[in-house]
Amino acid sequence: MVGVSRKEFRDLAAPEAAHEAIAGLDLTPETERVPLRESRGRVLAERIDAEMDVPGFDRASMDGYAVRARDTFGADEASPAELELIGEVHAGVEPDVVVGEGEAAEISTGAVMPDGADAVVIVERTEERDGTLVVRDAVAPGDSVMLAGADVAAGARALGPGTYLTPREIGLLSALGVDEVPVRGKPTVGIISTGDELVRPGDPLNSDAGQIYDVNSYTIATGVEEAGGEVRMYPHAGDDYEEMERILVQAAEECDLVLSSGSTSASAVDVIYRVIEERGELLLHGVAVKPGKPMLVGTLGGERGAKSENKGDTAATDSPSAYVGLPGYPVSALTIFQTFVAPAIRRAAGLPNPQTATVSGSMAVRERYAEGRLRLMPVGLLENESGETLVYPVDKGSGATTSLVEADGVVEVHPDTEYLADGESVEVRLFSPDVRAPTLLGVGEDDPALSRLLDRLDSPRYLPVGSREGLRRLRDGVPDVAVVAGPTERTVESVDIGGWTREWGLIVPAGNPDDVSGLSDLVARDLRFVNRDTNAGLRASLDAALDELAAERDTSKRELTARIDGFELTTKATESPARAVLRGKADAGLGLRATANELDMGFIRVGDESVRVHANPDRTEKPSVEAITALLSDADDVFDELSGYNR
Amino acid sequence: MVGVSRKEFRDLAAPEAAHEAIAGLDLTPETERVPLRESRGRVLAERIDAEMDVPGFDRASMDGYAVRARDTFGADEASPAELELIGEVHAGVEPDVVVGEGEAAEISTGAVMPDGADAVVIVERTEERDGTLVVRDAVAPGDSVMLAGADVAAGARALGPGTYLTPREIGLLSALGVDEVPVRGKPTVGIISTGDELVRPGDPLNSDAGQIYDVNSYTIATGVEEAGGEVRMYPHAGDDYEEMERILVQAAEECDLVLSSGSTSASAVDVIYRVIEERGELLLHGVAVKPGKPMLVGTLGGERGAKSENKGDTAATDSPSAYVGLPGYPVSALTIFQTFVAPAIRRAAGLPNPQTATVSGSMAVRERYAEGRLRLMPVGLLENESGETLVYPVDKGSGATTSLVEADGVVEVHPDTEYLADGESVEVRLFSPDVRAPTLLGVGEDDPALSRLLDRLDSPRYLPVGSREGLRRLRDGVPDVAVVAGPTERTVESVDIGGWTREWGLIVPAGNPDDVSGLSDLVARDLRFVNRDTNAGLRASLDAALDELAAERDTSKRELTARIDGFELTTKATESPARAVLRGKADAGLGLRATANELDMGFIRVGDESVRVHANPDRTEKPSVEAITALLSDADDVFDELSGYNR
Repeated sequence: MVGVSRKEFRDLAAPEAAHEAIAGLDLTPETERVPLRESRGRVLAERIDAEMDVPGFDRASMDGYAVRARDTFGADEASPAELELIGEVHAGVEPDVVVGEGEAAEISTGAVMPDGADAVVIVERTEERDGTLVVRDAVAPGDSVMLAGADVAAGARALGPGTYLTPREIGLLSALGVDEVPVRGKPTVGIISTGDELVRPGDPLNSDAGQIYDVNSYTIATGVEEAGGEVRMYPHAGDDYEEMERILVQAAEECDLVLSSGSTSASAVDVIYRVIEERGELLLHGVAVKPGKPMLVGTLGGERGAKSENKGDTAATDSPSAYVGLPGYPVSALTIFQTFVAPAIRRAAGLPNPQTATVSGSMAVRERYAEGRLRLMPVGLLENESGETLVYPVDKGSGATTSLVEADGVVEVHPDTEYLADGESVEVRLFSPDVRAPTLLGVGEDDPALSRLLDRLDSPRYLPVGSREGLRRLRDGVPDVAVVAGPTERTVESVDIGGWTREWGLIVPAGNPDDVSGLSDLVARDLRFVNRDTNAGLRASLDAALDELAAERDTSKRELTARIDGFELTTKATESPARAVLRGKADAGLGLRATANELDMGFIRVGDESVRVHANPDRTEKPSVEAITALLSDADDVFDELSGYNR
Repeated sequence: MVGVSRKEFRDLAAPEAAHEAIAGLDLTPETERVPLRESRGRVLAERIDAEMDVPGFDRASMDGYAVRARDTFGADEASPAELELIGEVHAGVEPDVVVGEGEAAEISTGAVMPDGADAVVIVERTEERDGTLVVRDAVAPGDSVMLAGADVAAGARALGPGTYLTPREIGLLSALGVDEVPVRGKPTVGIISTGDELVRPGDPLNSDAGQIYDVNSYTIATGVEEAGGEVRMYPHAGDDYEEMERILVQAAEECDLVLSSGSTSASAVDVIYRVIEERGELLLHGVAVKPGKPMLVGTLGGERGAKSENKGDTAATDSPSAYVGLPGYPVSALTIFQTFVAPAIRRAAGLPNPQTATVSGSMAVRERYAEGRLRLMPVGLLENESGETLVYPVDKGSGATTSLVEADGVVEVHPDTEYLADGESVEVRLFSPDVRAPTLLGVGEDDPALSRLLDRLDSPRYLPVGSREGLRRLRDGVPDVAVVAGPTERTVESVDIGGWTREWGLIVPAGNPDDVSGLSDLVARDLRFVNRDTNAGLRASLDAALDELAAERDTSKRELTARIDGFELTTKATESPARAVLRGKADAGLGLRATANELDMGFIRVGDESVRVHANPDRTEKPSVEAITALLSDADDVFDELSGYNR
């Protein structure tokens, strides 16, 4: 049932209204029965009372003799009782004796008490003498006997509805002989990826036609599973109304909730909007959070019987399916999903909020805000030397997929917050309960030796922002280390914990077809060049070499660079210029000998540059910083296997 | 490879030696490749570098016009540049224009930059006039363009080995077009249940022959899965050497680790011991922890090729399988498993220790110890009014399966600890990372109305220890509430938060075949009776009624009870006497009208007894106590639907 009435959409809805609208949607699946063996992580749909006694029989709890207690009354060392031995009873075997007055039967732990007997005399207090048992102790009825039902009694409440099943509950249910349990169903969530430009991972990609891989479908699908939902993926929908309508209606018939995600394209969003208006009910369009403006909430479908037919054991129903449209940018989509949708899925599945869903930490930097709407600010986590959690903002709204793994979660910043102070305590809602703070946060130059060193650390995070930006961040005090290549003017308080040198120069096609011999050829000849960005240490080395060349020629560097075709064509990563050359986009690229070797290309050496690892002076004793310091002096093999590297 | 040498077993091994022995066993599975879509919760086996640029093309990041930046140099409001419009480019479509000198093409966000163009002029800074574009702003190369590889550059390190895959990493891998990932394999763990008396849940149970359901197999199997292992269940093995050998050797061939568990039978343990000695290597027998004395650690099998054939893609190997034998009692088995085995499985699977595996709390009571060996003390958790975690000991060594759900985890108490003080801080290793402290801890009388009330609370824990024991525990200050039925002499400081009355008496077979009319028949006639234990409020009511009867007859209660056959035959739960009557074990049982009604039996009323809920005076404002207080005054339907109930 939909408990939220139709609304006007002129203004963005308040975030609370979005929570309410989603809470008002019916996602609740039917109860199902699953084998006990497969019930871990499920939630009991109803109370389970014991249907049998555990143990199911009066059970000897010691090795000894089954007797009638009355026959031992008054027995002691001085005047033992004497009983006639009539047989024995072993565990797992039905007793073939009945203990009468004046009789006893040998019994082992776990065995069924024979009829007539009501107590066990432990073996240490007896003696056997010619078929007669001498008992030196009086016992009371029930002594050394675990009565039927003493562990769990038939009729007793064993587990309540809503119990989350872990191994121990499964153990108790095993003891009760339960082999199938009634559990809350998992809400079925349909995922529709939209946008003409999206291609599913693994399918061939036509970059020339502007295709990109679909990031949101798998991100959200696995997020749904993490929240306890069951996913159905629908074929990719383009921007065509008929096709979109067909897929959305089918998904609504088959699912409790339909999520669309993927496209940033205005036309795809517009098409969905029209389908929801036509075939369902739009409850919310746009929420006053950043990100979240393009969020849609509504219902879809609702033809009687249609849903039940396709959902298997679901009873016939004419209730519509819930619909939420997520933003297109991956970080935004995951943020909105985790904030608004995942809690509703968990509720429907009967699952508690995971304990690890939020962590507290203090801001590692000051962050200004004051934007007038609720901001769900993506943040990264790290630990300081004392193991306290620090929080820093990550994404400034870009659609970069790398922000997905650079951010660990989201801090809610209220519309009237002007800034978050350095050191201010904040709550971070993690992107996943399984997210961990990295042990090391490194920033700076992108380098093949560094990649190999990082492989040997336990869950490091490295942001290849370039040497210059890395130093800037280190100065702000956030990262543990900055890796800085080439000449640098900036001085930042830090501790040099080691480094290496690497050979740099121009990378050209194999065999050097244009016969490039050095930087002067770039200036003098009609060669297409690919540069690195100004944050790169390699770029700093190139600039320094060009300064030198200009000085030699008594001209300005600007004069020289104006004559290099592609000097402004900058790329972000170490291998990128080489790969541009490989693709025929350029004749020469800035790069490392190691890269040229790796890609079987030609290389013209210009010089060596040093790469130094600078540690945050407050973090030199942090275990991960100590670990990378040790690696820098020990990992000879890493430097040996890369050409042009030295320490 | 087994890195621990053979040892002598005369003495119990130190717990550290057990950890070392298990750490020395080789459980590590081979790397496998899984579809990206199914990779959540897995661990990357190797570094993944980007094999392509993301985006894979230079991409317009705004709506506008693709131009050659040089053509706009110097343009401003006063002297706009004029360019010839030569076409348009849309997202997801290959451009069919080349932008030459003095030319521009309309372009939409996400579209491929056409050849020739190196910047986008945003639409707001332009005007179209008769096929001519008027540009009012100069742009630099790269303005409003996301260059190929600006998000992720080909060759860049994307994710390191050991990365735990959550939705966000799956998102990044999607962007890179990865559809299959190399992950650490799951160690295969074989589970063998032993003991002639054990029956798998769901199979028919012959209680007369002393059979009980196998608790440990499913408990440990789901514990293995929780730790990241893959389970193989083997057929139940009896105490026969040949059969045990056959099953153990088969399991060793097919698994990385073999666990046996289940039996408390000395002969089954002895048989396993002999098989390990014969077909493997015994490394440890008995560990100085309580529980854990019967623990075995060793290796099993190791014929060349045998393991590889059965493990599918595992390379040929002659390394033996690891073997650990767990104790028989369920709580002991789970404790030893979680302490010694689960960490080894997680390590082999490459999984981090779960953050929620331990919690800190303070002891709610003083606990004496000083037993001279490490004790793994099962404890329960609860919260006080301020939300602080309290810890109380649960199991004193019994084999009760109910302790499985009454205990939340284990506190390690060192051999030289004399006692844990009330309020002392302790670390609890949870039985499962998903274990939660219950919101309410109740103790006392077992009652059908109470069961229904508990169903309406969020994860309560109720221990049906009886009224008398419940009051004792409330006096010790541990539980939140105690439910007390019948007359009681003890006074405990508490707050009465509500209650009800219930009709009690004798339950007899339907139709009352023996024509029982009241308590005096039990005394006067040859009727077999089933009583409740002395902790039960029902028993207190019966004792009071018999006192009255004795006073009437001017005799002692003892005199009367001596004449009741079965007065000492006590049972633990409300329904147990009635069920004994149903089974023909007795002619009358102590019980409630509601129980007789439920089971369609006869009932002879003796009286009404009051049931009161007493709250711990320190916890009346705890939310769960407030919730049950509200239920006690509101849940009329619960009391209305049970016969003999009143408020």
